[in-house]
Amino acid sequence: MGKMKDRIRDSRLWDRICSAEEAASWIKDGMTLGLSGFTRAGDVKAVPFALVERAKKEPLKVNVFTGASLGSDVDKMFAEAGIIRKRLPFQADAVMRKKINAGELLFVDHHLSHTAEYVRANTIEPIDVAILEAISITEDGMVIPSTSVGNSLSFAKQAKSIIIEINMAQPSLLEGLHDLYDPEKQGERSPIPLKKVEDRIGTTGIPVDVEKIKGIVFTEQLDSPSTIVDPDDETQMMAKHLIGFLRKEVKAGRLAEHLAPLQSGIGSVANAVLHGMLDSEFKDLEIYSEVLQDAVFDLIDAGKVRFASCCSITLSEKKMNHVFGQFEKYRDKLIMRPQELSNHPEIIRRLGLISINAALEFDIYGNVNSTHVSGTNMMNGIGGSGDFARNARLAIFVTKSLAKGGDISSIVPFVSHVDHTEHDVDVVVTEQGYADLRGLAPRERAPLIIENCAHPLYRDQLWTYYSEALERGGQTPHVLEKAFSWHIQYKNQGTMLQQIKEKEMA
Amino acid sequence: MGKMKDRIRDSRLWDRICSAEEAASWIKDGMTLGLSGFTRAGDVKAVPFALVERAKKEPLKVNVFTGASLGSDVDKMFAEAGIIRKRLPFQADAVMRKKINAGELLFVDHHLSHTAEYVRANTIEPIDVAILEAISITEDGMVIPSTSVGNSLSFAKQAKSIIIEINMAQPSLLEGLHDLYDPEKQGERSPIPLKKVEDRIGTTGIPVDVEKIKGIVFTEQLDSPSTIVDPDDETQMMAKHLIGFLRKEVKAGRLAEHLAPLQSGIGSVANAVLHGMLDSEFKDLEIYSEVLQDAVFDLIDAGKVRFASCCSITLSEKKMNHVFGQFEKYRDKLIMRPQELSNHPEIIRRLGLISINAALEFDIYGNVNSTHVSGTNMMNGIGGSGDFARNARLAIFVTKSLAKGGDISSIVPFVSHVDHTEHDVDVVVTEQGYADLRGLAPRERAPLIIENCAHPLYRDQLWTYYSEALERGGQTPHVLEKAFSWHIQYKNQGTMLQQIKEKEMA
Repeated sequence: MGKMKDRIRDSRLWDRICSAEEAASWIKDGMTLGLSGFTRAGDVKAVPFALVERAKKEPLKVNVFTGASLGSDVDKMFAEAGIIRKRLPFQADAVMRKKINAGELLFVDHHLSHTAEYVRANTIEPIDVAILEAISITEDGMVIPSTSVGNSLSFAKQAKSIIIEINMAQPSLLEGLHDLYDPEKQGERSPIPLKKVEDRIGTTGIPVDVEKIKGIVFTEQLDSPSTIVDPDDETQMMAKHLIGFLRKEVKAGRLAEHLAPLQSGIGSVANAVLHGMLDSEFKDLEIYSEVLQDAVFDLIDAGKVRFASCCSITLSEKKMNHVFGQFEKYRDKLIMRPQELSNHPEIIRRLGLISINAALEFDIYGNVNSTHVSGTNMMNGIGGSGDFARNARLAIFVTKSLAKGGDISSIVPFVSHVDHTEHDVDVVVTEQGYADLRGLAPRERAPLIIENCAHPLYRDQLWTYYSEALERGGQTPHVLEKAFSWHIQYKNQGTMLQQIKEKEMA
Repeated sequence: MGKMKDRIRDSRLWDRICSAEEAASWIKDGMTLGLSGFTRAGDVKAVPFALVERAKKEPLKVNVFTGASLGSDVDKMFAEAGIIRKRLPFQADAVMRKKINAGELLFVDHHLSHTAEYVRANTIEPIDVAILEAISITEDGMVIPSTSVGNSLSFAKQAKSIIIEINMAQPSLLEGLHDLYDPEKQGERSPIPLKKVEDRIGTTGIPVDVEKIKGIVFTEQLDSPSTIVDPDDETQMMAKHLIGFLRKEVKAGRLAEHLAPLQSGIGSVANAVLHGMLDSEFKDLEIYSEVLQDAVFDLIDAGKVRFASCCSITLSEKKMNHVFGQFEKYRDKLIMRPQELSNHPEIIRRLGLISINAALEFDIYGNVNSTHVSGTNMMNGIGGSGDFARNARLAIFVTKSLAKGGDISSIVPFVSHVDHTEHDVDVVVTEQGYADLRGLAPRERAPLIIENCAHPLYRDQLWTYYSEALERGGQTPHVLEKAFSWHIQYKNQGTMLQQIKEKEMA
């Protein structure tokens, strides 16, 4: 109990300690919950389980708003228990994904910097209960987040009541790393005074009205490790192409030798591309990103990163042990911010980020689909990719040119869903090469994308489409009758390759 | 001559006065020109004509970068003369449009706030010659723009040489109204210190290196008047719906009684919607927009607008005479900024604008097409609509539900081109009503859009598509085989209406 009370330094709150079951019992059918957690890091790990248990005994539907995706299979359990009416702004769970696409729960796909604005402006369902993981509560009632900040500040401010989960397994050395800043209401706010990635502009914890803290639950469970896979030949090629492009930019005097603050999206591909910086000449790098994955810590270990600002730290099991086992080594190179700040257009434009995000597919004109398989089925969500791509100095999208063993081309005539328009896409990279689209008209883009990025297996097919489209003319030539024919053929015949189609039809 | 020298208060520049022909003779084949001008206002009116004359005698191709569209048929003449290789970031001329769509010249469709960044970062073709309209040059060589600011500051800074057209017909009272601010390089800039629409943060003119001013041409010709048409029954209905929505927001406490700074896109529809505010209870309005059209001055006359910030003033002939005939009356209510500032995401997000822009078409999930007819042919360009929609407090898109006498439905199953994704569209309005999409999942959006916004003529057809799509499932249900069938049918049969199709096929 002493150890627990050490983590609650405001003695007014000692009588709030309770069980997860008790805390879960305060949640009523129809409520909207604001949960901590961003890309598996810093999510609450006890109350959601107790809530799912409760739902086995009584009907219960709630809205669940978070920072981003959750770990600990919480989204899976929520989905299986059928207790979610609406989920936002991001998820990455296979079971939940299936239920979303079946229409069994509603999913709202926000830009990750927007959710806090909607909450603050009272535009979406108001937060009834905020449930937040913390490492401690300070003498003056400030809640210290753990491995992510997410939307916790906004949720805590707006929630009618707050439940805290103090996780004894999270490294207490995280305290002091967070920088909580609230821009305040639109129309009443000042410029955000952040000029460099390391600038500290807020408080180290979430200032809360302690009267709103209804319960404090103790847990002792590490974050779910990330599921990224190691770089492979193709992602290494992509990294090589990207580094080649950046090198050219430095040579042309458009980038400094230490480049510009880097943002890298969640997932194996973006991680691998960043990992490729290890073998480059670039050093004194700065990171201003949502999530720090393994690659950033490899780069810090190699002395290549000067400073990294993030909203969450999401690591593989091995890297988690390595990093948190010697956290003093990293502490003065890190700062953690709310996602509204890590993804804020004002900051992204000011700092001039180099932004690297994964695409599901892109088309011959540079429009990008990040979310919808065949234009209908949600994968994970747009996440922060839109926040970054629109405002970055360089909006770079990466993908392997093929999927499903070659039956899918990631470069298609017309993307089946648009998350990023041609206006917001500067450079596209595959293992085949890169296309620098800046300042190019659609008719200049198409040949470059086909030749530099598409897999040779599909190049002729893309040329055939583009040639036919050119005969029709237009700023962005298309043959609407055939625009989605590749996706339709994949659905019907299991491949986008037309040779097969012709063979079968002969 | 004395009157002319009064306008050139820096006597070092008196010997630079020259003819348009002489100035045009300095322009070499292959050069990139940066021209003043934004939505027909403040464009240069003599050198372009002289250049077109020259091109009759010798082969000449240039890139033409501007603020936005030009008046005085300059784009028409450029297009007819065939002297343009690349044009950006916006145009609105029928002849040029035709040439663009025929592939005879390249058009790059930028967000209007982005061009200055590309110029500054040396990412697109560097500006060889800036040709800028001014009302005067000050004692210390500052160039005072006329009825628009556009990208003139950036062009002047980067250009190797500068040609000034001093237009004696422009009201000299405009001097003092402009506020030129350069954010400087990404990564080295400070927060933009603008907190209120009326804040003055820069200089009243463009500071230039006078050595770069190669020639000064005198003109005396008013801007081309705007071509907007008066509000009609349908645009008045749209205004009524929009005002009803805003009233509801005020009642819910989400908007103040004086609303929030308003942005309204170029064109008759957006002008008419703003015009509708005249009959509303709203007053003390603020405008933070690209273009001030007639409606804003009607609102000022009615005592409803407190202050208006813009990048250009584009008026009908009648309104131009009215406004510039008594400009003292408006002077202290106006400020004019570079388009980088009028459209800057940092400012738009900070002030929390209410942004109203016209759509060509939108789909049942709220994706908006602002630019491409049938997905291929460029209309004008995205303009500032993306700058505003992404970052506004309220991103509102307006369109009549029908076009071409009912043969086109502006609400379609799948937009044939995406300029604004569902993530960036808050409210859609037609003469039928409005759909408030904030916080809604795609499956919540579709029924609302069909019922509230589509024309009754097309509602059943939309329901039929949506029902079939629902059977297939998905986060964003679609039948890809039929997604563009409406556009294809319009092309082949001249109408999107399926009853006709069925009748003909029977």
